Amino acid sequence: MDILNPSLLDKLRAHFAERFSATPAVREQHGHGESHHEAALPDAVIFAQSTEEVAEIVRLCAAHRVPVIPFGAGTSLEGHLAAVRGGISVDLSRMNQVLRVSEADLDCTVQPGVTREQLNQYLHDKGLFFPIDPGANASIGGMASTRASGTNAVRYGTMRENVLALTVVMPDGQVIHTGSRARKSSAGYDLTRLFVGAEGTLGIITEVTLRLYGIPETISAAVCSFESVEQAVDSAIMVVQLGIPVARMELMDRGLIRAVNAYSGLTLAEEETLAFEFHGSPAGVQGQIAMVQEIVREHQGKDFTWAQTQEERNKLWEARHKAYYAALAQRPGAKGWTSDVCVPVSELSGAIHHARELLAGCGAPAVILGHVGDGNFHVVFAVDPGNTQELEEIAAINKQMVRRAIAVGGTCTGEHGVGTGKAAYMREEHGEAVELMARIKRAIDPDNIMNPGKILPGN
Amino acid sequence: MDILNPSLLDKLRAHFAERFSATPAVREQHGHGESHHEAALPDAVIFAQSTEEVAEIVRLCAAHRVPVIPFGAGTSLEGHLAAVRGGISVDLSRMNQVLRVSEADLDCTVQPGVTREQLNQYLHDKGLFFPIDPGANASIGGMASTRASGTNAVRYGTMRENVLALTVVMPDGQVIHTGSRARKSSAGYDLTRLFVGAEGTLGIITEVTLRLYGIPETISAAVCSFESVEQAVDSAIMVVQLGIPVARMELMDRGLIRAVNAYSGLTLAEEETLAFEFHGSPAGVQGQIAMVQEIVREHQGKDFTWAQTQEERNKLWEARHKAYYAALAQRPGAKGWTSDVCVPVSELSGAIHHARELLAGCGAPAVILGHVGDGNFHVVFAVDPGNTQELEEIAAINKQMVRRAIAVGGTCTGEHGVGTGKAAYMREEHGEAVELMARIKRAIDPDNIMNPGKILPGN
Repeated sequence: MDILNPSLLDKLRAHFAERFSATPAVREQHGHGESHHEAALPDAVIFAQSTEEVAEIVRLCAAHRVPVIPFGAGTSLEGHLAAVRGGISVDLSRMNQVLRVSEADLDCTVQPGVTREQLNQYLHDKGLFFPIDPGANASIGGMASTRASGTNAVRYGTMRENVLALTVVMPDGQVIHTGSRARKSSAGYDLTRLFVGAEGTLGIITEVTLRLYGIPETISAAVCSFESVEQAVDSAIMVVQLGIPVARMELMDRGLIRAVNAYSGLTLAEEETLAFEFHGSPAGVQGQIAMVQEIVREHQGKDFTWAQTQEERNKLWEARHKAYYAALAQRPGAKGWTSDVCVPVSELSGAIHHARELLAGCGAPAVILGHVGDGNFHVVFAVDPGNTQELEEIAAINKQMVRRAIAVGGTCTGEHGVGTGKAAYMREEHGEAVELMARIKRAIDPDNIMNPGKILPGN
Repeated sequence: MDILNPSLLDKLRAHFAERFSATPAVREQHGHGESHHEAALPDAVIFAQSTEEVAEIVRLCAAHRVPVIPFGAGTSLEGHLAAVRGGISVDLSRMNQVLRVSEADLDCTVQPGVTREQLNQYLHDKGLFFPIDPGANASIGGMASTRASGTNAVRYGTMRENVLALTVVMPDGQVIHTGSRARKSSAGYDLTRLFVGAEGTLGIITEVTLRLYGIPETISAAVCSFESVEQAVDSAIMVVQLGIPVARMELMDRGLIRAVNAYSGLTLAEEETLAFEFHGSPAGVQGQIAMVQEIVREHQGKDFTWAQTQEERNKLWEARHKAYYAALAQRPGAKGWTSDVCVPVSELSGAIHHARELLAGCGAPAVILGHVGDGNFHVVFAVDPGNTQELEEIAAINKQMVRRAIAVGGTCTGEHGVGTGKAAYMREEHGEAVELMARIKRAIDPDNIMNPGKILPGN
């Protein structure tokens, strides 16, 4: 608590009473996400209940130049939540109201603590859904802040395309509204897109307006096995190149299928696998399926195994969403280290081949999975957090994967964000544009109190 | 030429020789777009040929604090090109090379002076197309800078969704690259989206990487007549709400049909009209058509009139793209004044009804057209530029349309941009977020040399 002015803590404690906590357990819980990255504890945690409360916390912290770190569901994978310079963790999980839904306009406004599963449960009876689905049951505020995507992005886009408007508490406590409910606008700088992916370094998102979609008339899901990863990936690439509007197209390697079967009680064939979902009218879905089956056969894929019922479909995708936890469960006590490169689709086969070569010499269990329709894939390593040599080995593999991705026109992170974990690659990927990012950061947050130490190298 | 240091003009003239011009005719041509907005002539025009040349011009102008205004095809509708504080117009029309196309990744990189028609002619033999299509044959750089859209946006999105990466000359002459060729990324602030729609006020775009699409297997186009605009609009709203993935859905009112028939030699029924295009597999297109026909019949629409051949389709959409010119041709010597509001789709019917009431008392010829699937519509007024009373009358109508759009959650401009024409509405639409835009502008362009007087009120 050394950096904190005791009078600030006293003020916050007095104001927020039992919603203020500086106990070690609560601070520990808020100092990390779900990955191997080292925790760094905030000095205190406040459970906020409104935009005005968030603004008040930020105003007080700004007056004392104390860092503020927004916290949603705690499912970050790149160290976003570590209070690397201490400060106040603002827990937004109690701001979990769906504020409005418009069935007519296919949009809604939610508080940032609403989780993706909560939102979809809320929407289901209205015949609507929100497609962006990272593996974890993340909060919508966190998903906006990391520019998250997931299995449906190949068809529906990412948070970049699906956030219409935001309410944001700025670093001086001012509250602004970005965007509008119009589907498109040319009215000035795209502030919405500036905050989407800013990881809380420019302000704290306290309301999010999202695009929604009608639940498709027909949904079909199937898995398809291949002898080799290359065959699976080449099939996926051809589906993309032919513009077939698949809703989901997910690669799971043999090792992951084994882990998922064990963790989620499935009986999928333990082979290299593509899992598909098709959305549309009955005729449209039939047409997509026929085309994809033909492509798959050309690449020696086996016959589709269908998830026949909605229950079977839900089980399949829930298992896919829990792939990270399944991979870790293979090694008791392990932490996860997830790579997250994204490359132009034509480079995907080479990138995955390269990753598999790197993995051949790796001591830790590792599985490969990917949103292959986007050119995005992950290696999930189940690491022993106390084994420095193993951590270094994986760091070296990760670095080589990232370097190759950047070299072929890709990015160091497709969906997990930069946090502390990828900051070292920002200059390699963006060159001098990193200076522009830093200039924007300084202009908006001159005292660097908003989630410091994230995104920008040396920040 | 009073604001210019003569030594700067001498340097530029010496360096660019015959590609430098300070003749009145060339300056006049570069001081305005295609609308009623008053021209303001630059002190000189330079026809740039490379990113390095643009950087050199900007460096020299920055040293003398002289404004720089980028110029593409000159088709702006909101006064973007007016050199309101003098300076140098950088004409990018000779930077018109398609630098690369990847059929495998469905993307390309072009120079900013490439026009949308030029790009699509280039792509056609490869079986690809770029869908964003403002009415004019605009340049890709200009389209990126105004966050343009067009008739296909309901299906394919706008420039916001379809620009992957940019090369930008910054206000100090530095050249940066934003984004990558990956379809998605969470690697830091979304600089690409910051420059898309910035109207040249933050830098000059000198290369654009775009998403492309395969030409659909099946394309069908049809027009449908209605007795009333309300029936047409309500049909369009239902198509959107049911999520039918129409590629185009354009409203043209009776008056516009009359103008278009005369201008483009068509024989469309002179009624309130929706024009549709359907893209997809044969079965998918049939399914979409069946659903849309049913919706249209429920709203007393007449039978579809089909554009049977590709030639007929091209003629239909070319006529639609030239609607602005057709509307002006009704009144010899007229200039165009185009409103451009965009509202949530559920508010569209009310907004158009309101606009029609306002038009009832208007002296100038006016037609209504709209990208109704996006909630975006225009009134094109054919104004007598010398008639002050008429200009004031239209300004008052425009203001009421904008105010209503903002009040119902919409925006003052769906696709034309802010320029000088909408700057007065920025605070009403964005509130205090305008201050954030101004802060970003100051941080990036502290001397305000990049297209000053645009977007930000009082800038």
